[in-house]
Amino acid sequence: MCGIVGVVSKSPVNQFIYDSLLLLQHRGQDAAGIATTDGQSFYMHKGNGMVRDVFRTRNMRDLPGTVGIGQVRYPTAGSSSAAQAQPFYVNAPYGIVLAHNGNLTNWEQLKDEMFRVDRRHINTTSDSEVLLNVLAHELQESSRDGLSVASLFQAVGKVHGRLRGSYAIVSIISGFGLLAFRDPNGIRPLCIGRFDGPNGTEWMVASESVALEGMGFAFERDVKPGEAIFISNDGKLTSQQCSAVSSMHPCIFELVYLARPDSVLDGVPVYDARLRMGDYLAEKISREIVNYKDIDVVMPIPDSSRPAAMQVAKRLGLNYREGFFKNRYVGRTFIMPGQAMRKKSVRQKLNAMRVEFKDKNVLIVDDSIVRGTTSQEIVQMARDAGARKVIFASAAPPVKFPNVYGIDMPTRSELVAHDRSDEEVARIIGADELIYQDVEDMKAAVRDINPALSDFDASCFDGHYITGDVTPEYLNRLEQQRKAPKAPVVESGEGDENEPRGVQLGL
Amino acid sequence: MCGIVGVVSKSPVNQFIYDSLLLLQHRGQDAAGIATTDGQSFYMHKGNGMVRDVFRTRNMRDLPGTVGIGQVRYPTAGSSSAAQAQPFYVNAPYGIVLAHNGNLTNWEQLKDEMFRVDRRHINTTSDSEVLLNVLAHELQESSRDGLSVASLFQAVGKVHGRLRGSYAIVSIISGFGLLAFRDPNGIRPLCIGRFDGPNGTEWMVASESVALEGMGFAFERDVKPGEAIFISNDGKLTSQQCSAVSSMHPCIFELVYLARPDSVLDGVPVYDARLRMGDYLAEKISREIVNYKDIDVVMPIPDSSRPAAMQVAKRLGLNYREGFFKNRYVGRTFIMPGQAMRKKSVRQKLNAMRVEFKDKNVLIVDDSIVRGTTSQEIVQMARDAGARKVIFASAAPPVKFPNVYGIDMPTRSELVAHDRSDEEVARIIGADELIYQDVEDMKAAVRDINPALSDFDASCFDGHYITGDVTPEYLNRLEQQRKAPKAPVVESGEGDENEPRGVQLGL
Amino acid sequence: MCGIVGVVSKSPVNQFIYDSLLLLQHRGQDAAGIATTDGQSFYMHKGNGMVRDVFRTRNMRDLPGTVGIGQVRYPTAGSSSAAQAQPFYVNAPYGIVLAHNGNLTNWEQLKDEMFRVDRRHINTTSDSEVLLNVLAHELQESSRDGLSVASLFQAVGKVHGRLRGSYAIVSIISGFGLLAFRDPNGIRPLCIGRFDGPNGTEWMVASESVALEGMGFAFERDVKPGEAIFISNDGKLTSQQCSAVSSMHPCIFELVYLARPDSVLDGVPVYDARLRMGDYLAEKISREIVNYKDIDVVMPIPDSSRPAAMQVAKRLGLNYREGFFKNRYVGRTFIMPGQAMRKKSVRQKLNAMRVEFKDKNVLIVDDSIVRGTTSQEIVQMARDAGARKVIFASAAPPVKFPNVYGIDMPTRSELVAHDRSDEEVARIIGADELIYQDVEDMKAAVRDINPALSDFDASCFDGHYITGDVTPEYLNRLEQQRKAPKAPVVESGEGDENEPRGVQLGL
Amino acid sequence: MCGIVGVVSKSPVNQFIYDSLLLLQHRGQDAAGIATTDGQSFYMHKGNGMVRDVFRTRNMRDLPGTVGIGQVRYPTAGSSSAAQAQPFYVNAPYGIVLAHNGNLTNWEQLKDEMFRVDRRHINTTSDSEVLLNVLAHELQESSRDGLSVASLFQAVGKVHGRLRGSYAIVSIISGFGLLAFRDPNGIRPLCIGRFDGPNGTEWMVASESVALEGMGFAFERDVKPGEAIFISNDGKLTSQQCSAVSSMHPCIFELVYLARPDSVLDGVPVYDARLRMGDYLAEKISREIVNYKDIDVVMPIPDSSRPAAMQVAKRLGLNYREGFFKNRYVGRTFIMPGQAMRKKSVRQKLNAMRVEFKDKNVLIVDDSIVRGTTSQEIVQMARDAGARKVIFASAAPPVKFPNVYGIDMPTRSELVAHDRSDEEVARIIGADELIYQDVEDMKAAVRDINPALSDFDASCFDGHYITGDVTPEYLNRLEQQRKAPKAPVVESGEGDENEPRGVQLGL
Repeated sequence: MCGIVGVVSKSPVNQFIYDSLLLLQHRGQDAAGIATTDGQSFYMHKGNGMVRDVFRTRNMRDLPGTVGIGQVRYPTAGSSSAAQAQPFYVNAPYGIVLAHNGNLTNWEQLKDEMFRVDRRHINTTSDSEVLLNVLAHELQESSRDGLSVASLFQAVGKVHGRLRGSYAIVSIISGFGLLAFRDPNGIRPLCIGRFDGPNGTEWMVASESVALEGMGFAFERDVKPGEAIFISNDGKLTSQQCSAVSSMHPCIFELVYLARPDSVLDGVPVYDARLRMGDYLAEKISREIVNYKDIDVVMPIPDSSRPAAMQVAKRLGLNYREGFFKNRYVGRTFIMPGQAMRKKSVRQKLNAMRVEFKDKNVLIVDDSIVRGTTSQEIVQMARDAGARKVIFASAAPPVKFPNVYGIDMPTRSELVAHDRSDEEVARIIGADELIYQDVEDMKAAVRDINPALSDFDASCFDGHYITGDVTPEYLNRLEQQRKAPKAPVVESGEGDENEPRGVQLGL
Repeated sequence: MCGIVGVVSKSPVNQFIYDSLLLLQHRGQDAAGIATTDGQSFYMHKGNGMVRDVFRTRNMRDLPGTVGIGQVRYPTAGSSSAAQAQPFYVNAPYGIVLAHNGNLTNWEQLKDEMFRVDRRHINTTSDSEVLLNVLAHELQESSRDGLSVASLFQAVGKVHGRLRGSYAIVSIISGFGLLAFRDPNGIRPLCIGRFDGPNGTEWMVASESVALEGMGFAFERDVKPGEAIFISNDGKLTSQQCSAVSSMHPCIFELVYLARPDSVLDGVPVYDARLRMGDYLAEKISREIVNYKDIDVVMPIPDSSRPAAMQVAKRLGLNYREGFFKNRYVGRTFIMPGQAMRKKSVRQKLNAMRVEFKDKNVLIVDDSIVRGTTSQEIVQMARDAGARKVIFASAAPPVKFPNVYGIDMPTRSELVAHDRSDEEVARIIGADELIYQDVEDMKAAVRDINPALSDFDASCFDGHYITGDVTPEYLNRLEQQRKAPKAPVVESGEGDENEPRGVQLGL
Repeated sequence: MCGIVGVVSKSPVNQFIYDSLLLLQHRGQDAAGIATTDGQSFYMHKGNGMVRDVFRTRNMRDLPGTVGIGQVRYPTAGSSSAAQAQPFYVNAPYGIVLAHNGNLTNWEQLKDEMFRVDRRHINTTSDSEVLLNVLAHELQESSRDGLSVASLFQAVGKVHGRLRGSYAIVSIISGFGLLAFRDPNGIRPLCIGRFDGPNGTEWMVASESVALEGMGFAFERDVKPGEAIFISNDGKLTSQQCSAVSSMHPCIFELVYLARPDSVLDGVPVYDARLRMGDYLAEKISREIVNYKDIDVVMPIPDSSRPAAMQVAKRLGLNYREGFFKNRYVGRTFIMPGQAMRKKSVRQKLNAMRVEFKDKNVLIVDDSIVRGTTSQEIVQMARDAGARKVIFASAAPPVKFPNVYGIDMPTRSELVAHDRSDEEVARIIGADELIYQDVEDMKAAVRDINPALSDFDASCFDGHYITGDVTPEYLNRLEQQRKAPKAPVVESGEGDENEPRGVQLGL
Repeated sequence: MCGIVGVVSKSPVNQFIYDSLLLLQHRGQDAAGIATTDGQSFYMHKGNGMVRDVFRTRNMRDLPGTVGIGQVRYPTAGSSSAAQAQPFYVNAPYGIVLAHNGNLTNWEQLKDEMFRVDRRHINTTSDSEVLLNVLAHELQESSRDGLSVASLFQAVGKVHGRLRGSYAIVSIISGFGLLAFRDPNGIRPLCIGRFDGPNGTEWMVASESVALEGMGFAFERDVKPGEAIFISNDGKLTSQQCSAVSSMHPCIFELVYLARPDSVLDGVPVYDARLRMGDYLAEKISREIVNYKDIDVVMPIPDSSRPAAMQVAKRLGLNYREGFFKNRYVGRTFIMPGQAMRKKSVRQKLNAMRVEFKDKNVLIVDDSIVRGTTSQEIVQMARDAGARKVIFASAAPPVKFPNVYGIDMPTRSELVAHDRSDEEVARIIGADELIYQDVEDMKAAVRDINPALSDFDASCFDGHYITGDVTPEYLNRLEQQRKAPKAPVVESGEGDENEPRGVQLGL
């Protein structure tokens, strides 16, 4: 998962995009990048690390211009190489920079086509570089008689025809303006903000509405599935549906876990959705746990499961308490020559307040269970703190399948719920009882808030992949590629290789 | 306020102290430092910034040895210069490194004495450097016939006689061992942990118990007011009360706000104290607000007021909801030549979930109110989000006086509650009603948990300064010195001057 | 002027190219860059500064592959922006990286053509980026039926037809091999080296033969004017004359000043050429200075005029002495806020040994005189050291015209010899007498060594521009563009902006 | 060997000392440091590397004040640890910073005494830190009744009594002034410069006169052996002979090799001394080499042997030519995982101009021969370039003994001339004939220029150690300590560990 932002302003945008990326930082902490243009040239800086570490004063100085895009990146399933920070750039036709949130499921075929047919070299294994080149190629074709908004939208239409997977896109065509579009299933979110300033209207597109509001822009609307938006360098916005077929299938994992609670995605306030999921979860608990009234306390795992846990407590008339404290200060483990490595205690990250657990029946609510290892540690901590009984509830249904649309998930064999019953999972994580949200309840919770949303991408829960091309063979191949995962940088320890490194556009 | 840690281990301590400092990072984010010894030489690295930014692989490699101390620093009232990261070092007698949490109220007189009598040069305006030199001087005197534990403790006794203010200290005497002590009023916390490992007993002292537990050490006990602890390089612990007069006056602000909720300070679990303060606050609310049953929802300001707010809600039988969301990703504002500076919206840091405020009577609980500006913004945000009525409650009493014992506080004129009635403050922050905790209730809340604690340093609430030397003239002088505060580094923007800079001990 | 190198090896080339660039560092100290390929992807790192400052261990690690190119850059007349380090990259067709030594005189027209006709965006004001795009365009055209060596050479032929100016080029076509070529006038040097190693033949091209020899490669031959060389990734070399018209006009300034004395360029050992110029200069001195026998001592300005000075002394039977000492350690002048800037004494760079000047008639031999300011200071230093009489001789003729073929020269009005007689120049620099080499003698000196060289680019001496397009209007425009020269970085002093900054290829 | 500088100015000295250190950079390239004072506090920055690499803008900004000292360091025999950059600081008494050029032969005994008697901790293995503490101790004693110039000089007298070895010292006593002194044998050079500026007289002391002149100061005089100089913060200079016994024994290796040719040391222009050594060497050649007239050409090894070689040529009436070219651009060898290391060709550093060697009898003159390995390579290069016969002459006598007075020299077994005849050395380096300067001729050469210099430290040539304490046992111990030399940093290659690292004084 990633966060993207684009802006057409009346004043310099470097600090503006930097601040926007901080508002989207929760969507990706692996890399960050900004590209700007003064109408003539592009300027770019990107690097591995968090926003605050990638950009220094001199980098910001080298990002002039009133139009720009930015991205924060989380490693996606298909490409996780550290060198592939976004945005990407191609110089023909016209000069285009682009940032992408999502994942293409057919990027390897496209890469091959690109080289054979269009002789375009893709230098990395990033699907986003492929995507940019497909767009560049189609724009080259569609603009043979001159570059126009119509030719842009025509190119986006062709792009929709060739891409499979998920993509929300911001890009700049040099000397022209900002182009944004969203895949025909609307899997990844993208919304438009507007600011009517003293020098005219300014526009912004971003992955989440918090970025708009945090920057003082008013939420205008969501980009529709398959739709393209063009904002000229002087601030005129045009839009068009560019896909013959389109239907809304937003990623439900955004609402469960990824997005900020204070965002509104496709008409759904995330916070409200999580509360509503709490309601359904409470219902199920009351149905399935006979003596649920004996639960002394309901507890969230900070920070994401708070709304659901609060609502569960309220619905069931139980006590809500915060018994876990999260340490927010994270450091590194250094490899010292000839020195044994001290095992990091889980307690450096999470700690249990004894008074809330001692001799109590505890209901722990987490947003979801993926590998199960963290849940297991949490259950153990509760017991160590004196809990008499530990019931574990997941606000999301069992995660049984990989996500191929831009969220980094382990392979099926690593998913604790894959091919296991709830009881088996309960035993593995050590809980006395385990309650999962039902898939249909989760969807109903969202529909209760926005009835217009009839369907979702919920593939990691229900195994249904909307793009139709995700076969068992595809998943097998994906898992093969993940087999030799590169050693986590934190353990390489040679020199300061894992310190942030910037890349300034030399083109 | 600062956090300090010291350890006498059987294996290298660089990573150990680094991890400990992360557990104390909430106590100071301005600077960090580590000093270690291999029994022969000292090794030190310190710098401005957070722990994760100050230490790189090469710095860690240059910190060998099995004995060491560390510090994280928050600017204190008396000395805020950026160049004065701790620990400090003097080479005579014996070689001593020292880290200090607290603030000396008579450091200027001591500095003068140091130079006149002992011809010791103090290179900075840090009271901690003065303190180290007083210790060095007294140790020089007391160890004329040879260095011994007795001479150490004798020196600490003399030090107690000369210092005024607050101090919790960790220090290393070269080739000898680790010395820790606490001022005779016990204002700043300090506790001892123990680990019985395969190679013998290892000892650790730290500002808070979370640091012990997070590192796998068992909490042994608190250091007593006026007591000194010595742990020889080979792990033997000796202790002695070094002050003729001593009595426990722990800083109550630690319990209100500073310490981590999962710490236990002087027998008081911080979390429990905050819950109990919630009880007393609820009582007062029920007494003072006639229609408190009309409150629709009780809301904390994340993260520190959660326990109090939860308890208020529970006691009053009101709904507890988290309507504010805090953005944890913080960046910088860069000064760009010829570019106007965009005002940072508060919403980049805190955001209100509309659904929780809309048409509701809201009771916002914060831990305390200092300047009042943040409270004012929070009230406004609640109103913008649709709140019908906003009641504001502070889990701490009105802050009316400066803190001179190591917590950076504004001058009296900047304290919103100084010389103002509660009604006046309510008007300033824009709340419909305002409830403050009572001073006696706050103290009672702590005593309920640990009846042994008869008295406290609560000077910022009650104006009573336990060290007896804080006269109106003293406070006036202090406030004069603060008058020309240096521009916040975030706004200097020239080059990357405010980036972390390490200092490796060249001695 | 720049230095370029390319290599097709059997083992990793990162250190190899780094070492080669050190051997060419005298050709440019402004920026450095390396691009490598593993046959699939390109890897690149470049930045401002000297080779030793631009590359760090982590950068070198990120440059895998057995084929690569490198460049060191000196700011050229047409483009001096600091952000434009080489190599450059385009991804269509095929993926090409390129490094350039020289200067295009028609790059602005070409840039315009590129955009209008081929819709190629040129992001910088570097003529080398334009050149790369012209090559890319022509290769796209010539390889419509598939990429082959023939299509490459055909593209180079077309490129020759479009470019004006000077260019020696190394480039890599992704997955194919290394392409090198030289402009049809052979203005900038380029030579080929060969190494028959255990794993087969390895090839290298470089600006000067010292780079070949220093790396253990045997000098094979010079690249001919207009010729192109292709070396496939597996080491097969092919070459072809790609220009219908070509004739050798090597830049004579290389022999006078730029190249290393131990290089051999187009059959001329540079050292020998300088000795021979000394012979002709001696002849002229003996003709023009009646009492030349009264000269007590002949002195070079270290380091470049040594050969000529030695030979002048020998020819005239005079004493040769080194009276000037050069300080090789260069630092920066920092701007300190509110601090006056101390004027740098010339004596920090050059110093005169009193004993060699005191009461003597001194003949100082320099390689050339450009602005005259340094010569003036040198004459003054000689007088300060006690010289009775100072005769100044220039081993090169008067520099009267700008160089537009890749050597950064001041405008005509700044050239001390422009529109001035020798006597006027003598008066300005303060010499008692001044002797310049004659243009014809300079050329004859080179022809004596390699009679095959009939003509040269000697434009800065004789005003004859071989490419035919350098009109007075062109020169006027050039000089207008130079009018507002950017402040020398050494004096900007804000932060550490002028410290080396690397750029790793993120493409 | 090191270079030191101290200045008492009327304006800020940071840039001034920086520039001075560049003028002394040839004396040490391992580390650099500056300490300044504003009369109240010291400010310091030091680090490993060359001056240009150690100091950045922010470091310079943090060095305020009008009084300061600086040092460049070359690893000395007794202490080569990388962490020990100078200056050093102690805070009692008064606060003193100090920089040292030389080497103490009894520092280990002193270190022991320091701890036992004065309980002063020496944190490093640097003899300079010991020296500073001896000074501090003696000043503490001598100034019991108050700090005065008399007490300073008294302390220096005591210091002279305790130290053995060589030392030229600059130091600052906080709030008082600059103290400089030189050991009673005057082994290491130190001179005084004066500048009568608009705001009064400014004073400077430095290792070599070039530093004075380059900074626009007039040479005032040399510091005498055993003499101390004090310059108060307001510019008043006082001096006194502080040693009961003193006699001039300047290090003759300074004149042979170390010092810059444009310096004047103890009345001897270095350049003149080298010329005169050339005269004596020529005499010996004419005596010992029968057919010396058959020598075609005399050649120096750039840069240091030029004066001697020129003079040899002149005296013998032979041709002087520069056939070797030196590459001044030095880089690193990076260790790449899994990549073989390419052997660096000598030709990357030195290259022979074929035309000067081809079929000639060549007399190569070098300044000295230490290990013999470089000489061997040079002879081979001359033969490879076609020399018919290679005669090698050393302007210095055979180096047969270690230097213990501050010049880093290999152990006796590594000295090619130790226990070997001239013929044996000739065979080892591959020369047809080998001529060494005679020890007495070398001394006579210097005496010819300054007859006042009756004796020298020439210990590495004649084995006579003036301090009387250098026994065979001492030398054996020294050589034992050198046995396990740390791996050259250039080959460690892990991360960028060998990049310059600064240390800002945190005290």
